[in-house]
Amino acid sequence: MDFSSKLLENAVNEVSRLPGIGKRTALRLVLHLLKQPKDHTKFLSEALLHVRNDVKTCEKCHNISDTVFCDICQNTKRNPEIVCVVEDIRDVMAIESTSQFNGLYHVLGGKISPIEGIGPQNLQIESLVSKVEKGEVKELIFALSSTMEGDTTNFYIFKQIEKFDITTSTIARGISVGDELEYADEVTLGRSIVNRIPFSQSLKA
Amino acid sequence: MDFSSKLLENAVNEVSRLPGIGKRTALRLVLHLLKQPKDHTKFLSEALLHVRNDVKTCEKCHNISDTVFCDICQNTKRNPEIVCVVEDIRDVMAIESTSQFNGLYHVLGGKISPIEGIGPQNLQIESLVSKVEKGEVKELIFALSSTMEGDTTNFYIFKQIEKFDITTSTIARGISVGDELEYADEVTLGRSIVNRIPFSQSLKA
Repeated sequence: MDFSSKLLENAVNEVSRLPGIGKRTALRLVLHLLKQPKDHTKFLSEALLHVRNDVKTCEKCHNISDTVFCDICQNTKRNPEIVCVVEDIRDVMAIESTSQFNGLYHVLGGKISPIEGIGPQNLQIESLVSKVEKGEVKELIFALSSTMEGDTTNFYIFKQIEKFDITTSTIARGISVGDELEYADEVTLGRSIVNRIPFSQSLKA
Repeated sequence: MDFSSKLLENAVNEVSRLPGIGKRTALRLVLHLLKQPKDHTKFLSEALLHVRNDVKTCEKCHNISDTVFCDICQNTKRNPEIVCVVEDIRDVMAIESTSQFNGLYHVLGGKISPIEGIGPQNLQIESLVSKVEKGEVKELIFALSSTMEGDTTNFYIFKQIEKFDITTSTIARGISVGDELEYADEVTLGRSIVNRIPFSQSLKA
């Protein structure tokens, strides 16, 4: 692309470093900002700088937080003995929106992925094991995505904690509510039959 | 969405004000920035602020520029008597990349669109008419998109300048190079037959 302005080129280059945003989209976004009042760009820049420089991660669960401990960990009405292990804070938000979980979380910050160069030492696994070691946790729920990386991470953590007296579980895999059976993939359908539950239990949730 | 951090929520809200970016995408982008070195966010914010606050528009053609007159208008090798009227600077970039045009541009900054509340007074039409009035321009090429808004804008400008001794033209509409005739829409194919050109001329470009 031939830019008529170095400032414009620079801004487009920076925006297009974001994931999933190419040069054309970046140009569209920057030109949009140029048509808006200057305040819009000012607020956007400040919000990005603030969140990057001032946001904290909860010292207990590693969720993103404005305080040393996040709201969930500080909530005394929640059960601290049940901990749900998730990949990142988007998973926390997704589970929270169901209102079905009353325990705490532990955000790993990713999955073990040799291809992307992410090993156990890059994730918050040590602090999770130490929580279990101290006897703070009675049940650990693995809620990582069921990919090879997710399964590897689950298994790695399981190996570290199996010597302790603790219940482990994973979230149920099965047919989505409202889905037609005929369009479900074989693996999911197979698991949903193997892991069937008493009918009376299905009426609760 | 339930955010665990006000700073994060604020940043996501600002990013999702950009066109075509929803809350989920905004969250993905902000979380990406949080995983990157702080410099990345700093450079991005600075680049956006700089381009918004310091970029100029060329006083002659209204193209985006770092100087009072843009590089194209300053280029003495170009023919100032042929002016190509375009909607925005992306169109200038697109035509420049063909290397087939040696005149100057006039960037309107949009199209007349009553629905979006854009009238002739919101566009750079007056300065175009005054260029023609002064006799600076011999030929005007209309290169707006062939939508109702584009055609309206072309016609509005044409009405303002038809009293002056000036050639007007529009870019050719026809079948794209490499396209199959059978898949072309009727309007384009029809125009390409009505506006057929001597075969010898087609060998030049």
